[in-house]
Amino acid sequence: MPIVTLTSDLGVKDYYVAIVKGKILSRVPSAQLVDITHEITPFNIQEAAFVLKNTFPHFPPKSIHMVSVHAETRTDTKVVVLEHDNHLFVGMDNGLFALMIEGAPKQIVSVPVPENLNTSFMAKDVMSGVVADLLEGKPLNAIGGPLNALESKTYLRPPDNAFIMRASIIYIDRFGNLITNVTKSQFEKIRDGRNFVINYKRNEELREISGTYSEVPEGERLCLFNSSGNLEIAINKGNASQLLGLHLDNMIQIEFE
Amino acid sequence: MPIVTLTSDLGVKDYYVAIVKGKILSRVPSAQLVDITHEITPFNIQEAAFVLKNTFPHFPPKSIHMVSVHAETRTDTKVVVLEHDNHLFVGMDNGLFALMIEGAPKQIVSVPVPENLNTSFMAKDVMSGVVADLLEGKPLNAIGGPLNALESKTYLRPPDNAFIMRASIIYIDRFGNLITNVTKSQFEKIRDGRNFVINYKRNEELREISGTYSEVPEGERLCLFNSSGNLEIAINKGNASQLLGLHLDNMIQIEFE
Amino acid sequence: MPIVTLTSDLGVKDYYVAIVKGKILSRVPSAQLVDITHEITPFNIQEAAFVLKNTFPHFPPKSIHMVSVHAETRTDTKVVVLEHDNHLFVGMDNGLFALMIEGAPKQIVSVPVPENLNTSFMAKDVMSGVVADLLEGKPLNAIGGPLNALESKTYLRPPDNAFIMRASIIYIDRFGNLITNVTKSQFEKIRDGRNFVINYKRNEELREISGTYSEVPEGERLCLFNSSGNLEIAINKGNASQLLGLHLDNMIQIEFE
Repeated sequence: MPIVTLTSDLGVKDYYVAIVKGKILSRVPSAQLVDITHEITPFNIQEAAFVLKNTFPHFPPKSIHMVSVHAETRTDTKVVVLEHDNHLFVGMDNGLFALMIEGAPKQIVSVPVPENLNTSFMAKDVMSGVVADLLEGKPLNAIGGPLNALESKTYLRPPDNAFIMRASIIYIDRFGNLITNVTKSQFEKIRDGRNFVINYKRNEELREISGTYSEVPEGERLCLFNSSGNLEIAINKGNASQLLGLHLDNMIQIEFE
Repeated sequence: MPIVTLTSDLGVKDYYVAIVKGKILSRVPSAQLVDITHEITPFNIQEAAFVLKNTFPHFPPKSIHMVSVHAETRTDTKVVVLEHDNHLFVGMDNGLFALMIEGAPKQIVSVPVPENLNTSFMAKDVMSGVVADLLEGKPLNAIGGPLNALESKTYLRPPDNAFIMRASIIYIDRFGNLITNVTKSQFEKIRDGRNFVINYKRNEELREISGTYSEVPEGERLCLFNSSGNLEIAINKGNASQLLGLHLDNMIQIEFE
Repeated sequence: MPIVTLTSDLGVKDYYVAIVKGKILSRVPSAQLVDITHEITPFNIQEAAFVLKNTFPHFPPKSIHMVSVHAETRTDTKVVVLEHDNHLFVGMDNGLFALMIEGAPKQIVSVPVPENLNTSFMAKDVMSGVVADLLEGKPLNAIGGPLNALESKTYLRPPDNAFIMRASIIYIDRFGNLITNVTKSQFEKIRDGRNFVINYKRNEELREISGTYSEVPEGERLCLFNSSGNLEIAINKGNASQLLGLHLDNMIQIEFE
């Protein structure tokens, strides 16, 4: 039986996630449920897309990934099921999946929802049932009607040129590490062997990329490509977000010689 | 095998919940354990009762629900096992179950505890064993002696009349939504089709009930009956508790024309 | 199949723990994973050792305990697998295991790591594979080469004498209870029936040891030997850490008559 992962902005303090689990287990008592995180910043689909993109490939093929972020009934937002990279995804078509997936998923279906459904809790009232359907082997085309494309939200990013890349902080982890939307391959392609300066704050810069945190003394700043392949600004054994005063969506700039 | 849910004020930071799980799994290695929440405000049996009441019905019949809130040995407080609505409950008879259950449970037994037991951790020293007994199929009357009634704590609530209902905030969730102890059926019965004003703060009032958060613009106040059927005061994409300065046990008042 | 427990400083906010779980489940889909805690204070091996020491004995024999605290590639730190007390442990040889285990473990092996591995995430890149190897029944001597002794970090503790014991606060739980490194057996051995005074703050002292929190009125200070057998300073229904201004590593002193 496939594994089910759960990602949400529902938090672990409340009982909302447990209700979703109870509903899935009531239909499929042997379901194996794994929490990715329920501490997504409320309504932040970009953060959720980043988390899911970096996590799902480590799960077994055919896993079912349920995502409930900014998920309440709205007339303009559908519940969708996707097949992508041999994994299945269930969630709202609110831009999150388009941010997570480069190119088009293999298949998308739109789940029919009762016209009079008026709920602030789609994970409970709709998604849990879809997950149970999938666990019971129901094919996607029996769950919903075909959909050609995902809803996409454009996040403006200034264009890169041969001398300057601009990027933003898209995730801050428990340690206060500042994770940017620059990937190693993007960086190396533009860099092309040149020296560079990373400006992350007025009058502060970094000129090299470390392999691990401990390559610099404790309390020193560094940057590295982290385990997700993204450029990260950090302080060895320190909280970079707090100590540098940098937050989600703040910009950084990389200049090449 | 029945599912076991765990609800407590033990927190997720510490290792206390893991000890309880280890003890259950040592006796029944294939037990399926699901956390409801461990972030109940310490000692707050009213909050725990609210959480459990809204969660257990979504789990399969015959599930076992262990609750450890304000649970240490006290001479005046028994460990009990209840059967109610085709579910089983294990916890302290400290008023929590009486708040959760309307009417009398189908069966109550009181678990004998060694006279010299002196522990601050009943979930580990007593309840985990009772859960394992239940998983192994031991009947309630072999686990403890019959008990006629649950211990109940009275929470005074001013009586409603045909023109005024008074209620209090009994739960605040991760989003800062303010959940009151007014249910939809209570409200509609008194309302009887009339107009109404909900006063939740001096000089602030609401005159209608929304279906979902997004029916009002972002940052606006609203109230709705939430997924548990309770009247909730909220701010669309905002933290009502912080922004309105309202906390647990604060009162609200509803006036009918 | 043995149970796998997970202890780390990776937090529950992020997706790092989920990646580790995904990697284990990708190799052994039926693995049963139990979180001990992921909220160890970052890099704090003493806290992690205390948590693990008090938790693992409650799990079934042959359980596999993975520990990722202060775990990134460093040339001076090996990944090890231990057999101890009929349990298996996987983690960094960074002093943590030597703090947890009195005496020598039954067997220690050092896991070979690719020379060019340069990672800030050993739990993902090395430990998850070792856990899967163990679940698949691979013997320790096929996983790594023998190691004679664990790396140990010395934490200075002033020597006790017949009249004075000095101790420190090694763990503070969710309730603000202050847990010290004095165990009941150490205390009773030196005490030898005499009266005593516990000084935990200038001008504040306790002269007796309670059995449970509720033996003193609400809001009153007390000390007791808690469920792990350690001396704990607490306030009945209060947060001792906040109210007394005491923190990790603060010292206390016990004088005997």
